[in-house]
Amino acid sequence: MAAMIELVQGGSVTSARGFKAGATYAGLKKRGEGVLDLGIVLSDKPATVAATFTSNKVASPSVVLSRQRAKRGTGRAVVANSGCANCAVGPQGLKDATEMAALAARHAGVEADDVLVCSTGMIGVELPMALIRQNMGNIKVTSDGGHSFARAIMTTDTHPKEIAVSVEVSGKKITIGGAAKGAGMIHPNMATMLCFLTTDANLEREFAQAALKEAVDASFNMIDIDGDTSTNDSVILLANGASGGTAITGGTAGAAFQEALTYVCQALAKELARDGEGAERLIEVIVDGAKTKKDARLAARSVASSLLVKAMVHGRDPNWGRIMMAVGKSGAAINESKISIFVNGIQIVQDGVSIPYSKDSVVSSMNGPEVSFQVSLNPDRVGESATAWGCDLTEGYVIENSAYST
Amino acid sequence: MAAMIELVQGGSVTSARGFKAGATYAGLKKRGEGVLDLGIVLSDKPATVAATFTSNKVASPSVVLSRQRAKRGTGRAVVANSGCANCAVGPQGLKDATEMAALAARHAGVEADDVLVCSTGMIGVELPMALIRQNMGNIKVTSDGGHSFARAIMTTDTHPKEIAVSVEVSGKKITIGGAAKGAGMIHPNMATMLCFLTTDANLEREFAQAALKEAVDASFNMIDIDGDTSTNDSVILLANGASGGTAITGGTAGAAFQEALTYVCQALAKELARDGEGAERLIEVIVDGAKTKKDARLAARSVASSLLVKAMVHGRDPNWGRIMMAVGKSGAAINESKISIFVNGIQIVQDGVSIPYSKDSVVSSMNGPEVSFQVSLNPDRVGESATAWGCDLTEGYVIENSAYST
Repeated sequence: MAAMIELVQGGSVTSARGFKAGATYAGLKKRGEGVLDLGIVLSDKPATVAATFTSNKVASPSVVLSRQRAKRGTGRAVVANSGCANCAVGPQGLKDATEMAALAARHAGVEADDVLVCSTGMIGVELPMALIRQNMGNIKVTSDGGHSFARAIMTTDTHPKEIAVSVEVSGKKITIGGAAKGAGMIHPNMATMLCFLTTDANLEREFAQAALKEAVDASFNMIDIDGDTSTNDSVILLANGASGGTAITGGTAGAAFQEALTYVCQALAKELARDGEGAERLIEVIVDGAKTKKDARLAARSVASSLLVKAMVHGRDPNWGRIMMAVGKSGAAINESKISIFVNGIQIVQDGVSIPYSKDSVVSSMNGPEVSFQVSLNPDRVGESATAWGCDLTEGYVIENSAYST
Repeated sequence: MAAMIELVQGGSVTSARGFKAGATYAGLKKRGEGVLDLGIVLSDKPATVAATFTSNKVASPSVVLSRQRAKRGTGRAVVANSGCANCAVGPQGLKDATEMAALAARHAGVEADDVLVCSTGMIGVELPMALIRQNMGNIKVTSDGGHSFARAIMTTDTHPKEIAVSVEVSGKKITIGGAAKGAGMIHPNMATMLCFLTTDANLEREFAQAALKEAVDASFNMIDIDGDTSTNDSVILLANGASGGTAITGGTAGAAFQEALTYVCQALAKELARDGEGAERLIEVIVDGAKTKKDARLAARSVASSLLVKAMVHGRDPNWGRIMMAVGKSGAAINESKISIFVNGIQIVQDGVSIPYSKDSVVSSMNGPEVSFQVSLNPDRVGESATAWGCDLTEGYVIENSAYST
């Protein structure tokens, strides 16, 4: 039974009860109208904390500190900056992350240990702590400060990504809000992306971590911009229980919450892919008929990650041989002679070979802002399915990334 | 003790004694001045055959047939076409590959089983056999036909890639010649690349296969253009023993042969990377001080494969954080605080953090046709090393690949 998920108009990380947020311009990014680069999300009372972090062995000290604090399972706030990744800066990085959290804690009136910290931006340069010390006090956390916070975490994003939904769980309406940032270095298994999720649901700690992992696996771990994996990725969920009721540990209530959380994460993940550096089109890849869930995920991610597939979407070219190539290299078990491929619902391959189709119609259908590829691995079985998202590769990506630090 | 490897001027697959080659235009590619698309390499007498093929699960029937025939360990000829990959075309593909080999065998006057076949070009369209039947007879194999053969296998390559070297093995001068083609879908573990190697050395069959694998691992498996893996990759070595002497099985003679074979493969692999689609610069990545050979290879390949690294080379931007990111995501064991990075010999990172360096000098050094990154994982040990090659990512790659089939 699907839960009734309602979109909250103008939703943000402060849509759920008991959360405040705010941001300021501290000078970490280039000055400009409306530019913000330092923000805080604060829960009125102690919240259950769940989090997932980058798999890169070079991790930002901000990640090191937050990973450690998230393990406690409870917290009050997150402080985040853009413009500097606080990464590959030696022992100074952990000192700065710790001080930044302490400054936020003092300003918000909470314990330092209850604050997690996230950084995004250039690798290899130290956080300009003088600016952070001077400006932390300028952050005003308010119950409608979510939009400012979402803007403060942007780097090459062209617009902020935010959403909130409501759903009834055990007779109580709970809200989940989220803000995320991309936009390059995005690859399955998380990449320079930060995502902050807030909910007034009352979540038992282990359930919260399991639910977050499931939602991240079906969303942020299924998107690809350029195959690179950042040093700073973090998804942090704060659940403050302000909606009341007993703690959700699973069962029917857990399933409804899970559905809403996955919805929020997928919506944000798709926005990240759509706003990939230089991207003009969102690519959706649905693989079904797979022998195992793992195979379905591997194949879908491989197609969404292929540079040749991304380039052909940019050129609106249904060169399906590249999809076959990407499925073949994915590691998924396949039988080439069973494969069907659909582009925006139009079948072009059956039993592994091309069928007669109107190329003009397919090319024309690829002109829209979203291009969908469905790869059915075997029509003889229902099988497992998975969906991955990517974006097209454009000249804009190359231009944007060829002179980022200079 | 290093072998004395001498470059053969104007070398090709017919530089070694007892090999002939030739090519014709059969109409598989667009007509143009000097365009060739069907070629044969022929050994005067039975040759030892060694080969490595694509790891993609969607393999061209041309690969399926050649893999099977290579297992016999002996053969006389290879027939190759460009313009059509003979892949994802159903059961017709194997029929066509078999017929194409038979046509070549009849024309060359050898047994059909002694002919291997390679195809490269568009996936998903059948080989136009009528054209191949009509034109196979036009191929004239001659002892100076190597250059024509090299041109016949080109697809998006801007120029043919050929080389030959001589080396003394057990008091006899032996020659190794090679021709290869790229240029997109190139990734570690082979990608749309074909390479044909001929030698008049007398090689024992198992030694030949082991030597080829070692050479391919240090060359074609260490280059990356775009992370994709083709369905048609093949490296085929024919050794006809025309130089005389007893069969090489290893030892000092084997080591000298290995060195020359690896030299030939690395020279061709670097040419493939340099001529990657849209590429303007060759990237060389040397990783040393690694705990294991595997770690060194993983780290070098990860840096050479990173889109963000490729894009920054295009922009002559020494944004070394991306190198740290790529090493970190590679899976290699690292200690971030021990890492040094050099750009074209200029050190810019020590103990994992930036050191003061003249940015203008580094940017200026990146203007050349080759950019070298050295990543020393740990100065406290000699450790293992590996070298990988890639090319920069340019707007040209995107333009070339966004409308290949249309």
